Amino acid sequence: MIHFECDYTEGAHPLIMSRLMDTNMEQTCGYGQDEHCERAAELIKKACGAPEAAVHFLVGGTQTNMTVISAALRPYQGVISADTGHIHVHETGAVESFGHKVLALPAQDGKITAAQIEKVCEAHRQDDSFEHTVQPGMVYISNPTELGTLYTKAELEQISSSCRKYGLYLFLDGARLGYGLAAPENNLTMEDLAKLCDVFYIGGTKVGALFGEAVVIINEALKKDFRYMIKQKGGMLAKGRLLGVQFEVLFENGLYFEISEHAICMAEKLRQALKECGYPFLVESGTNQVFPIMPDEKLHQLEGKFSYCYQERVDEIHSAVRFCTSWATKEENVDALIKELKNS
Amino acid sequence: MIHFECDYTEGAHPLIMSRLMDTNMEQTCGYGQDEHCERAAELIKKACGAPEAAVHFLVGGTQTNMTVISAALRPYQGVISADTGHIHVHETGAVESFGHKVLALPAQDGKITAAQIEKVCEAHRQDDSFEHTVQPGMVYISNPTELGTLYTKAELEQISSSCRKYGLYLFLDGARLGYGLAAPENNLTMEDLAKLCDVFYIGGTKVGALFGEAVVIINEALKKDFRYMIKQKGGMLAKGRLLGVQFEVLFENGLYFEISEHAICMAEKLRQALKECGYPFLVESGTNQVFPIMPDEKLHQLEGKFSYCYQERVDEIHSAVRFCTSWATKEENVDALIKELKNS
Amino acid sequence: MIHFECDYTEGAHPLIMSRLMDTNMEQTCGYGQDEHCERAAELIKKACGAPEAAVHFLVGGTQTNMTVISAALRPYQGVISADTGHIHVHETGAVESFGHKVLALPAQDGKITAAQIEKVCEAHRQDDSFEHTVQPGMVYISNPTELGTLYTKAELEQISSSCRKYGLYLFLDGARLGYGLAAPENNLTMEDLAKLCDVFYIGGTKVGALFGEAVVIINEALKKDFRYMIKQKGGMLAKGRLLGVQFEVLFENGLYFEISEHAICMAEKLRQALKECGYPFLVESGTNQVFPIMPDEKLHQLEGKFSYCYQERVDEIHSAVRFCTSWATKEENVDALIKELKNS
Amino acid sequence: MIHFECDYTEGAHPLIMSRLMDTNMEQTCGYGQDEHCERAAELIKKACGAPEAAVHFLVGGTQTNMTVISAALRPYQGVISADTGHIHVHETGAVESFGHKVLALPAQDGKITAAQIEKVCEAHRQDDSFEHTVQPGMVYISNPTELGTLYTKAELEQISSSCRKYGLYLFLDGARLGYGLAAPENNLTMEDLAKLCDVFYIGGTKVGALFGEAVVIINEALKKDFRYMIKQKGGMLAKGRLLGVQFEVLFENGLYFEISEHAICMAEKLRQALKECGYPFLVESGTNQVFPIMPDEKLHQLEGKFSYCYQERVDEIHSAVRFCTSWATKEENVDALIKELKNS
Repeated sequence: MIHFECDYTEGAHPLIMSRLMDTNMEQTCGYGQDEHCERAAELIKKACGAPEAAVHFLVGGTQTNMTVISAALRPYQGVISADTGHIHVHETGAVESFGHKVLALPAQDGKITAAQIEKVCEAHRQDDSFEHTVQPGMVYISNPTELGTLYTKAELEQISSSCRKYGLYLFLDGARLGYGLAAPENNLTMEDLAKLCDVFYIGGTKVGALFGEAVVIINEALKKDFRYMIKQKGGMLAKGRLLGVQFEVLFENGLYFEISEHAICMAEKLRQALKECGYPFLVESGTNQVFPIMPDEKLHQLEGKFSYCYQERVDEIHSAVRFCTSWATKEENVDALIKELKNS
Repeated sequence: MIHFECDYTEGAHPLIMSRLMDTNMEQTCGYGQDEHCERAAELIKKACGAPEAAVHFLVGGTQTNMTVISAALRPYQGVISADTGHIHVHETGAVESFGHKVLALPAQDGKITAAQIEKVCEAHRQDDSFEHTVQPGMVYISNPTELGTLYTKAELEQISSSCRKYGLYLFLDGARLGYGLAAPENNLTMEDLAKLCDVFYIGGTKVGALFGEAVVIINEALKKDFRYMIKQKGGMLAKGRLLGVQFEVLFENGLYFEISEHAICMAEKLRQALKECGYPFLVESGTNQVFPIMPDEKLHQLEGKFSYCYQERVDEIHSAVRFCTSWATKEENVDALIKELKNS
Repeated sequence: MIHFECDYTEGAHPLIMSRLMDTNMEQTCGYGQDEHCERAAELIKKACGAPEAAVHFLVGGTQTNMTVISAALRPYQGVISADTGHIHVHETGAVESFGHKVLALPAQDGKITAAQIEKVCEAHRQDDSFEHTVQPGMVYISNPTELGTLYTKAELEQISSSCRKYGLYLFLDGARLGYGLAAPENNLTMEDLAKLCDVFYIGGTKVGALFGEAVVIINEALKKDFRYMIKQKGGMLAKGRLLGVQFEVLFENGLYFEISEHAICMAEKLRQALKECGYPFLVESGTNQVFPIMPDEKLHQLEGKFSYCYQERVDEIHSAVRFCTSWATKEENVDALIKELKNS
Repeated sequence: MIHFECDYTEGAHPLIMSRLMDTNMEQTCGYGQDEHCERAAELIKKACGAPEAAVHFLVGGTQTNMTVISAALRPYQGVISADTGHIHVHETGAVESFGHKVLALPAQDGKITAAQIEKVCEAHRQDDSFEHTVQPGMVYISNPTELGTLYTKAELEQISSSCRKYGLYLFLDGARLGYGLAAPENNLTMEDLAKLCDVFYIGGTKVGALFGEAVVIINEALKKDFRYMIKQKGGMLAKGRLLGVQFEVLFENGLYFEISEHAICMAEKLRQALKECGYPFLVESGTNQVFPIMPDEKLHQLEGKFSYCYQERVDEIHSAVRFCTSWATKEENVDALIKELKNS
């Protein structure tokens, strides 16, 4: 069985594994206060053009989201999100478990707009009984989104501007950030994120690392006491240097970008083949997630040979599914899949 | 100014005030363990035909909702509600503040259906990554709803049956229950609620009392340790007998039903006049809330004389508003309003 | 049976009842935004010499404590309290239910000292792994304490000064404030509280009202969005004017102080008699709670005639108990108790 | 600088690193549902003699503690712990952040007794206002404790028996379990834990793994829906197989026990040397943590060469400190430290 159902089926990039081996018997202090974490933070701040940023390393995405959101909001505030947002539908209510409502907006291909955000804020302001409703305190967006789409620079600027206008923090979930930056249609840089967001995270788990996400805090107000939050939410890794070491490797020579490009090439190749087969797509996207609409019969043919993620039923005989590529995807496996797709 | 914007603009029914006076210097023990609470509970159990029920008295609706829901759910469970439900839109995220997600369903005139509930439960069951999503644990409905509409007996039976099928608790918010029971089209009794719900509450605040809601717990599993929950959530009134005394008066000679009928008569009279004026309604309902769609110009004419609750803009020159009657509405005030409405 | 077990066995002072009757059919808007609440707030601000204070009315003490504390603390902060403090031992973990640890200090007769507070803060500061421990964010004291004792002005000044030194909010729980102010040994005024505390509350439930506590917020940082907190925590009374009306009566002509003095006189009379009987006291206090250590045999003799609150076993044949007086205590009842005490 | 301040200064045991390398490019499904996790769970169940147990893998200790405790308790329940317990003093209030009070008991050398637990439960039962206090719902103990001490089999049997008598869950935190099992004075086995506890965890982070703790759930009531809890609390590792792989290596040939014995030997050697130097100990313990009381002057001499953990001031010129050994401690480093200690 060849796996295409997600982008975390393998371990880590060989260079990371080899560095973990090399540093294995080093003695360092714990909890992310070692030199590897320090250096990794420096590399990331440089990559973002944000020397004043605070960088923290956490183990996984849900943990990161709940820690950042809990740190940012007052008890009666909620976080605006696309209704397809990971925090709204795939984290077992972690945000709510810390007391905050997710204010879900209907997404278009996984994205929300500045206009939608402003509408929510205006409605709250003008409500006679506004104190009886949850106050918007933050906007959460994923980029790439859960549907593989990307915000353009113009869109992110508008969202950022709306957030500042209404006093909301802007938080960008970059679980698959590398794959977004490497996509052909992308026009956002890490420097842009550092300018437009209050806080964002750079995903490692899905982009070459064994695990790990790097939170980049830009807004001063969010920096204070953040390590207390990490510890309380269970996210402070004893051997924190494991995170530092991995992000050092990813960012010291541009590995993060290089391996992301590989994933995009593989996705592009697959996407092209699917088009040649005449399959439409649930959503157009140029990142590492591909969402063809395929005949159930064809999907049946793949069973036991190639895995994918079932997305949704489209009609009686067609379904939308997801194929993921990643830093680890072997071209020979993509070729094998394409061969099977074209084999009727 | 004559108030019609809500059903809690006055104090309490004179019989309640007079009983509070009569019992004022009695010495009783605190926290709802006095004889008044005991007797009130007996009267309510009798009215519900539910001798085994546990009855608790709380001060207000939000407090009651959050206490009941928090007592019923496991940390990873959420509560299904209409997207117009009070817990979803008018309690400042109180349910989320205790860790639970509100799973909002699109409502039709304030109501949800058994079919919608089953669909949510089936989707959760069939989800490959079901443990990454909030598990439905309870259904919350309001009757009358926030839009004044009522569930029929058949509808409530279906919802109850779906809840039992999928292992969900059914909780009915009866903040305006009296006005529902007294509505002409109603075919539900308190005995029906006791048979079909796991827990419900009988609203006092909006139906004759100074304040107070009576929670009726039918399901054994929800009875255990409920008083700990009340205390922890800040809902245990020191002079609990104030709640007992009020519900004694409301239920010893049918006062609750009698004063509810008065509110319905007043609403009916107003509704008739609005129809005669040719105004359509945002929603058809026979309870104490009336939702006409009126020209803004006409609303402007009422200003300073009659208060109402602004509901929503319908078009450039029309708005939907809410007029409420209650146990305290004076017929002369309704007549005055009608006169103004008909005066062009 | 004559009750002395607590100070909330009766309803409200007759003047309050009569005002509630007089205003009963007034129509006001809800949720504490009526003229009675406004006027009551003005009276209280005047009594505190704090024209800039924000005053809010809540129903009960636990609710008030959890709302204030939750509004003040960041998620990783805790509240310092005497280990006898109400929030630590008698609120079913309400503070923890909103996510905060109570940092309990060993109390001396219900009180803690500035030195103890500073020691906790210093230990936290100097801890190498301080981010792994709860950060002190607030000090909670009760005055009178749960053991009826009082802080002197000098003690409160020291505590206040320590709080400012270490960046902690100071919150004073005045559930029985009237009885403290009226005690012979008291040298604190309401103006002092407004100068020394960041927030405090004036108890109504135990001092003449049917229910109700008035929160006085001095510190600007705590004022913002406080009504959201009240609503979310279930403490926003629909007919909020009930609270306003009661505090108007209590503060418009000094009734609050007058009735508190009565309670103190009654306690003093009882205390004197107990001394004459030769009983020692668990704790010396001049407020409305009296804690004699009595022979079990004598307590047995009171059974069925006079109720008290059992405090703790002292030795095999002696127990400490609590007798409470209040605004409602009838002198004839105190006399009857004294007669029984002296009747061997 | 040679590190002795804690037992997580290095990476993982070489056999674990090598297995991680070998399995790195395997494709597996995520979230702990792969074959490595399955096999590791089988090995652990076998080692515990508990074929019916449920075994889950989490990343770190705080996360594990909060997930287990949150899964076990009702909202109004608290967890009994030694006042030196990790959850009480070193997790930034993580347990409280999920709503539960830690009911701290004064510990003797890090341990609590069955008698103490029963006293708390009896006091709660007999309290007239028991619903106003937190209900004990679970007992949390660490073994080895935070002070390196061990519970004897007899002690654990008594605690287990008290828990069953009062309806409390018993949860044993085995962050350093290996070092406990390997200690000379230990008379507990993993089978004993499975018989006496409702749930416990086997620490990997401090005993050979890069990270990871294995939760062993014995009590049926705690098994249901546990994976929802893991996900909600942010503890579900995407590449869950990393945990499975590590515990496979630790338990397939007794590596866990073998490397623990090494740490104990090293600690014993150091302890012996300290005794020879004439230093007393803060607490007697035979596990991998050694707590000598040493002259500050001597400690000063170690600076920059050997790191330790400062524990507490004993008198003006003496301090108690902690030296830790681990699976990774090199004998040459212990020898160097001993040499320095003996070199005056």
